[in-house]
Order: sequence, then C-alpha cells, then structure tokens
Amino acid sequence: MLRTIIKNGIFVTMDESNPIVHGYMTFEGNTITGIHEALPAPLETFDEVIDGKHRLYMPGLVNTHGHAAMSLLRGYGDDLALQVWLQEKMWPIEAKFTAHDVRYGTLLSIVEMLKGGTTSFVDMYDQMNEVAQAVEQAGIRGCLTRGVIGFCSPDEQTIKLNDAKQLVKDWHGKADGRITTMISPHAPYTCTPDYISRFVEASHELNVPLHTHMSETAREVAENVEQYGQRPVVHLEKLGFFSRPSILAHAVHLTDEEIEVLARYDVRVSHNPGSNLKLASGIARVVALQKAGVLVSLGTDSAASNNNLDMFEEMRLAALLHKGISGDPTAIPAAAALKMGTIDGANSIWLNNVGSLKVGYKADFIAIDIDQAHFLPRSNYISHLVYSASAKDVTDVWVDGNCLVRAGKCLTLDEEKIKREFELCFDRLTGN
Amino acid sequence: MLRTIIKNGIFVTMDESNPIVHGYMTFEGNTITGIHEALPAPLETFDEVIDGKHRLYMPGLVNTHGHAAMSLLRGYGDDLALQVWLQEKMWPIEAKFTAHDVRYGTLLSIVEMLKGGTTSFVDMYDQMNEVAQAVEQAGIRGCLTRGVIGFCSPDEQTIKLNDAKQLVKDWHGKADGRITTMISPHAPYTCTPDYISRFVEASHELNVPLHTHMSETAREVAENVEQYGQRPVVHLEKLGFFSRPSILAHAVHLTDEEIEVLARYDVRVSHNPGSNLKLASGIARVVALQKAGVLVSLGTDSAASNNNLDMFEEMRLAALLHKGISGDPTAIPAAAALKMGTIDGANSIWLNNVGSLKVGYKADFIAIDIDQAHFLPRSNYISHLVYSASAKDVTDVWVDGNCLVRAGKCLTLDEEKIKREFELCFDRLTGN
Repeated sequence: MLRTIIKNGIFVTMDESNPIVHGYMTFEGNTITGIHEALPAPLETFDEVIDGKHRLYMPGLVNTHGHAAMSLLRGYGDDLALQVWLQEKMWPIEAKFTAHDVRYGTLLSIVEMLKGGTTSFVDMYDQMNEVAQAVEQAGIRGCLTRGVIGFCSPDEQTIKLNDAKQLVKDWHGKADGRITTMISPHAPYTCTPDYISRFVEASHELNVPLHTHMSETAREVAENVEQYGQRPVVHLEKLGFFSRPSILAHAVHLTDEEIEVLARYDVRVSHNPGSNLKLASGIARVVALQKAGVLVSLGTDSAASNNNLDMFEEMRLAALLHKGISGDPTAIPAAAALKMGTIDGANSIWLNNVGSLKVGYKADFIAIDIDQAHFLPRSNYISHLVYSASAKDVTDVWVDGNCLVRAGKCLTLDEEKIKREFELCFDRLTGN
Repeated sequence: MLRTIIKNGIFVTMDESNPIVHGYMTFEGNTITGIHEALPAPLETFDEVIDGKHRLYMPGLVNTHGHAAMSLLRGYGDDLALQVWLQEKMWPIEAKFTAHDVRYGTLLSIVEMLKGGTTSFVDMYDQMNEVAQAVEQAGIRGCLTRGVIGFCSPDEQTIKLNDAKQLVKDWHGKADGRITTMISPHAPYTCTPDYISRFVEASHELNVPLHTHMSETAREVAENVEQYGQRPVVHLEKLGFFSRPSILAHAVHLTDEEIEVLARYDVRVSHNPGSNLKLASGIARVVALQKAGVLVSLGTDSAASNNNLDMFEEMRLAALLHKGISGDPTAIPAAAALKMGTIDGANSIWLNNVGSLKVGYKADFIAIDIDQAHFLPRSNYISHLVYSASAKDVTDVWVDGNCLVRAGKCLTLDEEKIKREFELCFDRLTGN
C-alpha cells in the first residue's frame, strides 16, 4: 500500500487530545497512520512526500443534507416562500428531470463540493442510481437515499418504496465502502402516516437508518396538528420512526417537549442555516438541541435554496447566527462550529472513523492555503477557519486516501465536460 | 487619455434602465464612456482591448464602516460580548499600536479588500495619516475619519479633535480626489455631550459629514437613557448632530420613533450584519429603515469582529438574515442587497458618480470569474452574485480607471512585504 507523508504542515486535527499539530502526517492506503511534531521516519521510506508549506490541513467537511441534482435550479425562483417555491417552481421543473439531468446536476454539485473541501455528503433525491455512479466515479463519500414524495396512487407508492429499497440493496457499502445508504420518506407533509410506516419497516428490514425533512416551516407544523392532531415529532414517534437511528433535516420549529422527545432516541439533526434563512423558514433551536444532547451537524440543502454548497459558510452562519439571536456571544464558539462541520457531521451519518485527523481514521482531509491576508495574523487558526475562510481557500482534497483535487483541479472528473453538459440540461429543461 | 474597451463581457450595471448588458464597456482615463451591446468603434481605435470572456463585470463594492488596522487583531479575542471585547481585549492592545502598526494593519486590509472586490471603504481609526498614505499608494478610494474616544483630559480632548480636523485639512480631496474625509466622535458612550458638540461644530466649519457608532448594543442604549435621560437618536438630535449630513454605523437598537427621527434628516445607516451577529449585538431593523426612506449600506466593521472583509458575505448575510427573522422570503431580494453593497454604499458616503457602470461614472469596477460550478446555470447573475459568490471569485479590479488587481495579484502593493511586516507587528504587539 502507498505510504505518504506530509511535511511542514499545520494540522487542525479535531482530536481533542491533540488539537493543532505543526509537523507531519502520514497515511497508508486509505488510513491515517500518524500525526507527529517530529519526522517519524526518513523521508525516503515513503512513496510520496508532500510539502505542506503555507498549508493548513483539516478533516474534510461533511454536508449532512442536500439534493445535489438541484444545482440545475440554482437561481431559479429566489425570494419565495418554501411551499410556493416547492409547488410552483421546483416540483414542476423537477418532474421533467431525466436520468441524464440528475447525472450532470449531481456531478456539477460534486465538483463544487469537492473543490470546496466537502469530502462526504448526504444526498436525498430521485434516480439515485445516477447519483451513486457519480459518487463512485468522483471518489467522494456519499450517504445516499431515495427521497420519496407520496402524492401518487398506491401502486406508484409501492414502486417508489421498492425503488428506495433497491438503492440500498444495490449500493450500500459499495465503491470501497464510500457509499452508504438510508431510507427516506420525504416529509410528514408529503407522505401519509401509513406510507411512512412502510419506510420504517423497510429501514428495519434492510438495517439502514432513516432520513426525512421535519418541521422546516411553521406552516407544515400547523398543518400536521390540524390533520393528525399532533406536532411532527410526536407524529413520527408514534409511527415508530425513532425506533430506528435517524437524521432529521431542518427541525426548525421545535417546542421544549419535542426537543426532550428527540433527545430520548438515537436521532440526529442536520441544521441548514443558509437554506432556512433564505426560504424564511426560521432559525432552528440549535443551542437547545445541543444542550439536550442531540447531535447537530450542518447541511447546505440544495443549491436552489442556498445557493452555493460552501460548508465553510454554513459553519460561519451557525457560529454567527446563534450568537446574534440569543444575545450570547459565547453561543457556538468557533471550535464548536468546526466540530459540527467535520466530526459531528461524520458521526451524524454513522461514519465513525471519519472527521478527525487521528490514527486509524480514514484519510479524508483537505488543505487550505493560509498564505493569504484573511488568514493573518497567525493568531488563532480555528477562528480563521470558521470566521474567515471560504470554499475557495481549499487547494487539495483527499478522500479515502486518494487525492481528488490537486491545486484546485479535480483529478477524477472532467470539469469542463460536466459544465458543458450541465448547461445543455438546463437549456433543455427551461426550453431555451 | 488612455482609451480602453472590454469586449465579450457580461456587465451587471446597477443602472435600472439597463441592468444587464452582454457586450462592451469603454472607459477613458477614470471615466466610463459607454456600455454597448454592439462594438461601438473599431477595436484598433482603443489603446487597450481587454477580453471579458468568462467574466462578469460589476461596480466595485463599497464598504461603509470599518477600522482597517484592526486586522492585526483578527482572531484575537473571539466569542466575547462587545463591551468586554472592547475594554479587555481590543483597547489595551490598540493602545500599543505605533504608526508603523497602523500602516501595515491598514495595508493588509487594503490587500484583502481590493483582491475581494472592494473599491471604496470607510475607515475610522487613529494615526490616520498612515491610512491616507496607504490609500494614496494602493489606488483604492477611501473615506477617512479620525475616530475619537473622549476618555481623557480636556487638553487631550482638544489635541484629538485638532488631529481629527487636521486629517480633513491635509487630505480631503487628495490622491486625485480618491480620498474624502469625515469628522467622528467614536460614540455617544465614549464622548460627552459637550465633546460631541465640538465635533458637530468642526463638521460645520470644515464642511464635511459626520460619522459615529450608534446604538450598537442594548446595553449602551440603556446606559444612554440612564445617564442622559434619552435614547441615542434623540440625544444626538439635540446635540445638532443631524444638522450635518451623517452616516451612523450599526444602529441596531432603534424604536419606531427613532426611525422616524432619522428619516427626517440627511442621515444614512451602515448596516454591519456579520459584526453585529458575532458580537451578539443583535440584528438591525434594516427593512423598517429602508421603508422609512433611510439609505442603508453595508460595512464589514473590522476584521476583529467579522473576521474577514468580504463584502459579498455582507450582501448575502443582509439578504438572508432579514428574510429569516421576518418570516418574509421576499425581504431584501438579491437585487436590493447588491444595491446596498454598490450604488447605495457609494451614495451613502457622498460618492455620487461611483457605484454604477454608467456613462460619466468613475471607472471603479471589478471582474468576477463566472466559469465556475457555483455560477451555473446561467439562470440569474444577480442571484448568483448575492447568494453564491465570494471575495475569492474576483479576478481583476479597477479604481478610478487604474487596474489595481490583475488575475488576482495586487499591482500597486507589495503583498509579500506587507504580509511579512504585518506578522512582525503582530509578534511585537503580543510579545512573541
């Protein structure tokens, strides 16, 4: 197996016993084998020596909620309310998406994510076979799930559920283990209780976790109460949803009681601050969730409601927003935001050896060019990463020990071809 | 005078009669002479032809509140409340700043701002002679003001006020008109009423506008009421502050009545969303201010409370934040945020022919590399600029007709030397 050493680097490890190391990191195959202040072995004993001068290395970012193919809808219908935006703008055009569109929409998002330092992402969409193939080809890590909207006949519901199950059967653990899967009813407001129960069953049967949108808007919570007599958390609890490990996207509108319920189960929350602000959905109670012991990570949601896939921005937003609305400047300090974007994200999607630069962990990491004005003075690297960095500061990216981006160029994907095909897809979808 | 044409460009003009032009822009000396869809004259009649392929051109960004030299304190004391942060972290170390520190702190910020597309900035600080020289050398546009804190003896107060006036006398209109000036008591909580009155007088006497921090925190408003029996707006109104054209930084905590008062005068507000969130100061009532007819622009504040000087981020924050807290997804749409960051910013600091790509306007403009995943599809450029772009997407910058940044490199400043000297300043200030 290829043995690599990075010399002269600064390593932000996310390992609490050893947070910042100036020196060396070694990895062998897909696994980190050492983090050292002194050279651990002669350089000539390694197959590859990388000079880390002017670079800061950190674990790759983990984006725990999104819909990659929707990059095709970036800037298409901004400044609208969630339900209007979904029903009048997103859904009609998405209904026209072919497998080819999903392929190139996803590939473009993977290019953006990888170049911006995201090494693992959750994707909930349709035509997931295309997404899985894109993940396999790109070399990124993907936690994939067919998101099912239940507005259709019982027969179609069964077809869609089977499609969701087939993704798990075909792809779970594939691409050298880089692909994992989940089972996803889209949301309590798009799937009937009976139908949700069938997803819970499937999750038991296939032994994979559940993912869904929940309580993103006040309106959907009110409608849930009106229709089913209870708020979404109790509604899902009664359907057995939380009998399975699960990750909820958004969870913006929660009462204290609902937070207590979530804390009793193996439930994680993907906080999507940019998307929630843009759609005017509100601001999730992240500090209260974390206080109750709920694991909270970060997601961009799709480029249609964000509108980029820059996880540095989500970390920064999380760190800034919860200070501003609570009046507490110590809420979500920089280190906590960085944790949410890396190791907490990895743990949230059951990647238990990803998200830290630590011996035995997967070699999923990124390099940041810190030889720039906005990273000076060299006072506090963790602060600079959260409060000052952006996707564009990432120069190199490794996933599973493989270098996927070098000096800002994708090595596994043909970026020019992807951009070209993507534009053709958009033109066809919008009739240009 | 040098005649330049940009061909094959996309121009986001901020001129409502002609918002997006695909084609050509010409400028002569420091003035824009044309925006055309068709070639206006043979290319060989121009002294310089620039190929704008893959580039979007827009007016340079205008940062209407900051303290450039404080980049030396980036990451130094994060996650603290404003008053604690100022009194225990910022002020003690700032007391040690030499002219040399101010010079290199400012130059580093100018490097960051210019490379990130900011072509005009407000600077309120001390040792402003250094700042003025840095602006002159860099070629950027600066609206400069000596910010005076009145915690000192009457004699020292007079010295500081004279220093503030001397800046105006020495530098107003200098550097080919790129430098303008203002008069600034730091804030109502750091200057007594009598002392503020003397700044108002000086502003009349020298015929320049006033700038101050106002109502940034709830605590300072409460203290103003306790000490002077009124909230800051009425307090300043009674001191004749608003008898002069003025720009207020922050203005976070305002009642409806205070907004009405401000709207009656020639008062502008610099909204600093990133800084206000980070210091947990709160969220300014921007939508209400704009509705009342108050001109609102955007500022980064210093890198110590932001922590970068990326004006794209402030535009995005303004567009996202006010949607999220109001529940109205149409609040501050993309076009309005872009206006706040460009032409509204220029008008806010009395630059009446800056901030638009329009015939007769100053050639202050920037180029963005739109041949990137996060700018696709080519659905809506204004949306992409506000919701997806960052400082790092800027490739070229012109101010007053001069190219200051080409392909990401500063042409007027020695970036490597500035970074080196800046680090030495930081090390000395912090005793390393």
